[in-house]
Amino acid sequence: MSVKKVAVFVAGSWGTALCQVLADNQHEVVVWTRSEQQAVEINERHTNEKYLPNAVLNPAIRATTSVEDAMKGAYACLIVAPSAALRAVAAQMKQYWHSDMFIVHAVKGFETETLARMSEVLNDELQCGEERIAVLSGPSHAEEVISQCPTTVVIASASLETAAKAQDLFMNDSYFRVYTNSDVVGVELAGALKNIIALGAGLSDGLKFGDNGKAALITRGLAEIVRLGTAMGANPLTFAGLAGVGDLVVTCTSQHSRNWRAGSMIGQGMPIDEVLKQMGMVVEGIRTTKAAHILAEKHDVQMPITEQLYRVLFEQLDPKTAVEKLMGRVRKNEIEDISF
Amino acid sequence: MSVKKVAVFVAGSWGTALCQVLADNQHEVVVWTRSEQQAVEINERHTNEKYLPNAVLNPAIRATTSVEDAMKGAYACLIVAPSAALRAVAAQMKQYWHSDMFIVHAVKGFETETLARMSEVLNDELQCGEERIAVLSGPSHAEEVISQCPTTVVIASASLETAAKAQDLFMNDSYFRVYTNSDVVGVELAGALKNIIALGAGLSDGLKFGDNGKAALITRGLAEIVRLGTAMGANPLTFAGLAGVGDLVVTCTSQHSRNWRAGSMIGQGMPIDEVLKQMGMVVEGIRTTKAAHILAEKHDVQMPITEQLYRVLFEQLDPKTAVEKLMGRVRKNEIEDISF
Repeated sequence: MSVKKVAVFVAGSWGTALCQVLADNQHEVVVWTRSEQQAVEINERHTNEKYLPNAVLNPAIRATTSVEDAMKGAYACLIVAPSAALRAVAAQMKQYWHSDMFIVHAVKGFETETLARMSEVLNDELQCGEERIAVLSGPSHAEEVISQCPTTVVIASASLETAAKAQDLFMNDSYFRVYTNSDVVGVELAGALKNIIALGAGLSDGLKFGDNGKAALITRGLAEIVRLGTAMGANPLTFAGLAGVGDLVVTCTSQHSRNWRAGSMIGQGMPIDEVLKQMGMVVEGIRTTKAAHILAEKHDVQMPITEQLYRVLFEQLDPKTAVEKLMGRVRKNEIEDISF
Repeated sequence: MSVKKVAVFVAGSWGTALCQVLADNQHEVVVWTRSEQQAVEINERHTNEKYLPNAVLNPAIRATTSVEDAMKGAYACLIVAPSAALRAVAAQMKQYWHSDMFIVHAVKGFETETLARMSEVLNDELQCGEERIAVLSGPSHAEEVISQCPTTVVIASASLETAAKAQDLFMNDSYFRVYTNSDVVGVELAGALKNIIALGAGLSDGLKFGDNGKAALITRGLAEIVRLGTAMGANPLTFAGLAGVGDLVVTCTSQHSRNWRAGSMIGQGMPIDEVLKQMGMVVEGIRTTKAAHILAEKHDVQMPITEQLYRVLFEQLDPKTAVEKLMGRVRKNEIEDISF
């Protein structure tokens, strides 16, 4: 395998974990950060305490505060930023972009103002063509990747050549396994929308509703994600895969998940402002609930769980009342309600 | 709602929890048990300590050791027995069976000798016609149902009239929600086969492989369950529902699950004989792995997770080697591999 240079934006927990995978695979990894202090920490101490406490980074990972330094001569770019920052990150990459590069992003969410998917935002800013963009998603806590726990993800691109090139960069035989997929819309929607259900699962756990209730919520949540996804052009099969069921399971049942934790605090009765303050990091699921609420209306799709969650988050509905409303719906035939 | 008499076989943990739902719904519940001592305990102390420690049963639940007493004048029968005991239970019901009754069963597994599904065994013994049989399944720990945690299940029957009648018996507005489905094959296979994946998830946890690895195993496990199910005539959509994804999630992520616990002990290195001795109760997943191994061959379906698990359980393969084999498979396109 030949050594490739990869420019990574930015050094959050998942971005740093993916730097580690690339460095473990012997690639040249240069991660861009706005913070001089973080760059020094990564370069000299080989740690990133704020985002990955206790992790020892591969010393081959180099950090820089210069976009040019990161991108010059790069074979590929990896973007792992909060969804709200994606456009700004792409804008500053633009002058160093070459048409023989490709981008892999691992960002889950929508652009709030436009409701655009992440690859749409990238293509809009960089004008690189969708065949130069891939999305990486799947059940993958950063902390476990750093510990080399076996992890399996999917990489999707409109170009299977790009997907295969990205697969070659990330895949290894010891702990990181990559499947390819051509359904970018499905992988992006699955990754974004599952955060809504993770919030709901946390809410259910915060209310002490038990594993039965949470499993029902995950299952019915998956059904409504598939309904919206299909209406927006995704392949419903994608939602049965790693970016769908896989990520949903890991996010809804693990206490590593920020969205689950936020939901759980809300379920325990903490006001939403207080939850956001305590979390410190971005809770994508809250922004995504708002986006999905608008998209469901636009595409005329029923999303009862999203709807109740929206009312809890933005209209002060009591969480317990919301779950009771979900339980009290009319009796139904299951299959009529699932649109895989 | 009019009061109906329901005869229940037998008083294990799930059978007793469903007795409680029926009694809470004001029905007349008579549960048959072979054990005089258990009958006295249920009738006089309103407890079932061996199977549901600390639960207080509805005093309207009556236990009997007479099959005739249980079945005489019954509107419906509910069977919740280990899969290996189903034929014997059905055989002793036969002389009291009336053609205006219907049966709901909640048994997950195959008959080992014939590889028949549970409703096939019932129909074979009782000759009642498949339209008189329904199957109840879904994410439902007995302990949580007794605590009235919100729980959602699916009831499937070849006859939607039977499914609707059964739905009316069990559904209530406070904690037990029932969806109907006409895909008996799918619901029975989903319920049986998920126990294999639960064993595998336990194994993964026992080996400390983390949430990422477990989520991958659940997702890829679901894909192979769907492959076998579809080959055997199930509607693939059923596996995306409560009996599939829902039950899989609850079984793989909760320590209440016997199959998960057994897998976890095996993953920690305990010999299988010792695991079975410690469990005390039946571990359906072990029998089901053997059945699925044979069925996969018969229907020419690839089931790599089932295959590795079979080798761990029956051919002394080291669990760690088994999981490494699963990780090391050739790189693949995800969608080609899923057959929803």
